[in-house]
Amino acid sequence: MKDVVTVLFDGFETLDAFGPIEVLGRLKGHFMPRLCSHHGGTITSAQGVSVLTAPASEVEASGHVLLVPGGAGTRTLVNDEAFIESLRVLAQRAEAVLTVCTGSVLFSRTGLLDGRRATSNKRAFRWAVEEAPAVEWVKRARWVKDGNVYTSSGVSAGIDMALGFVSDALGHDVARRVAAEMEYVWNEDAGVDPFADEYP
Amino acid sequence: MKDVVTVLFDGFETLDAFGPIEVLGRLKGHFMPRLCSHHGGTITSAQGVSVLTAPASEVEASGHVLLVPGGAGTRTLVNDEAFIESLRVLAQRAEAVLTVCTGSVLFSRTGLLDGRRATSNKRAFRWAVEEAPAVEWVKRARWVKDGNVYTSSGVSAGIDMALGFVSDALGHDVARRVAAEMEYVWNEDAGVDPFADEYP
Repeated sequence: MKDVVTVLFDGFETLDAFGPIEVLGRLKGHFMPRLCSHHGGTITSAQGVSVLTAPASEVEASGHVLLVPGGAGTRTLVNDEAFIESLRVLAQRAEAVLTVCTGSVLFSRTGLLDGRRATSNKRAFRWAVEEAPAVEWVKRARWVKDGNVYTSSGVSAGIDMALGFVSDALGHDVARRVAAEMEYVWNEDAGVDPFADEYP
Repeated sequence: MKDVVTVLFDGFETLDAFGPIEVLGRLKGHFMPRLCSHHGGTITSAQGVSVLTAPASEVEASGHVLLVPGGAGTRTLVNDEAFIESLRVLAQRAEAVLTVCTGSVLFSRTGLLDGRRATSNKRAFRWAVEEAPAVEWVKRARWVKDGNVYTSSGVSAGIDMALGFVSDALGHDVARRVAAEMEYVWNEDAGVDPFADEYP
């Protein structure tokens, strides 16, 4: 049983976090979702959903799955050194790191994405490249796996990536079953990206 | 500007609520998501996400959009008369009602779905028919619109339905733009249901 530790912050994108949590949280006995934030307490998403979180410093997980959503809140957080340091600590103890949307830009500030292949939201792609030139950014990808780091394109792509992670961890049949139970049409080819050319 | 009042309860399915909230919450100036529950306070989803809610009795909305998710918690709530009565009051004041998954079964207990066409989760379809024989259940549908009541199939179908609702309310171009911004491959034909035959 692995904890799925999601790091939230004010202005996170609702579905970035709760799409993958839906996927992994369905696999009871394998994954246990836990929500944290830098200081703990109530965190409100960009769409006004207020959730309860534990302080990141009290998360005793190791060997966990770390989930980093994106959203408007990342724009200031990339410059918050204390937040980035706590994210680095959580990532270094993790067995796998999953980011959604601009969560990859936030995560890149830890330095742990340098030299790795990664993707991000297509509307914010130029920002990603500017913020983290040492990352090998891949524009045409629904999601990218490089070692134990999974990064996805915008918002709903996190669901596809989470199913891809389940496929790698527990087998393709399990991932397909979860998708069917969610009545979700899984975009299961990580390299097919209908939105790569949508934005300049 | 319309409130989107989501009625939550312990054991609600995470994505049932937060998929449509993601869609509608992106349309700032048009929709404002608000979370409530029968007694208010902290409510925890089937996947362990704890959210803050207002008491349903304090929701002063009228002309709002009512969103009713499904999930394991519906199995006992269908027999909770006080809850169903508060749901009926919220629904009667609403301009539109949207249900996801077994949220349609829960909503059917208000009597307001009787004689209407509706759908539900395909894995729970027999339960839906047994619980509410006065509803005209439609098995093969991603979502069903009957007047101002929208009901969707399981979990992720709520995202497609919410985009369908946006298309009806604000135009097809707006719905397509929101889907593209979410990098979501919208299953936009309400009658195409890849999961109708998945379960007996």
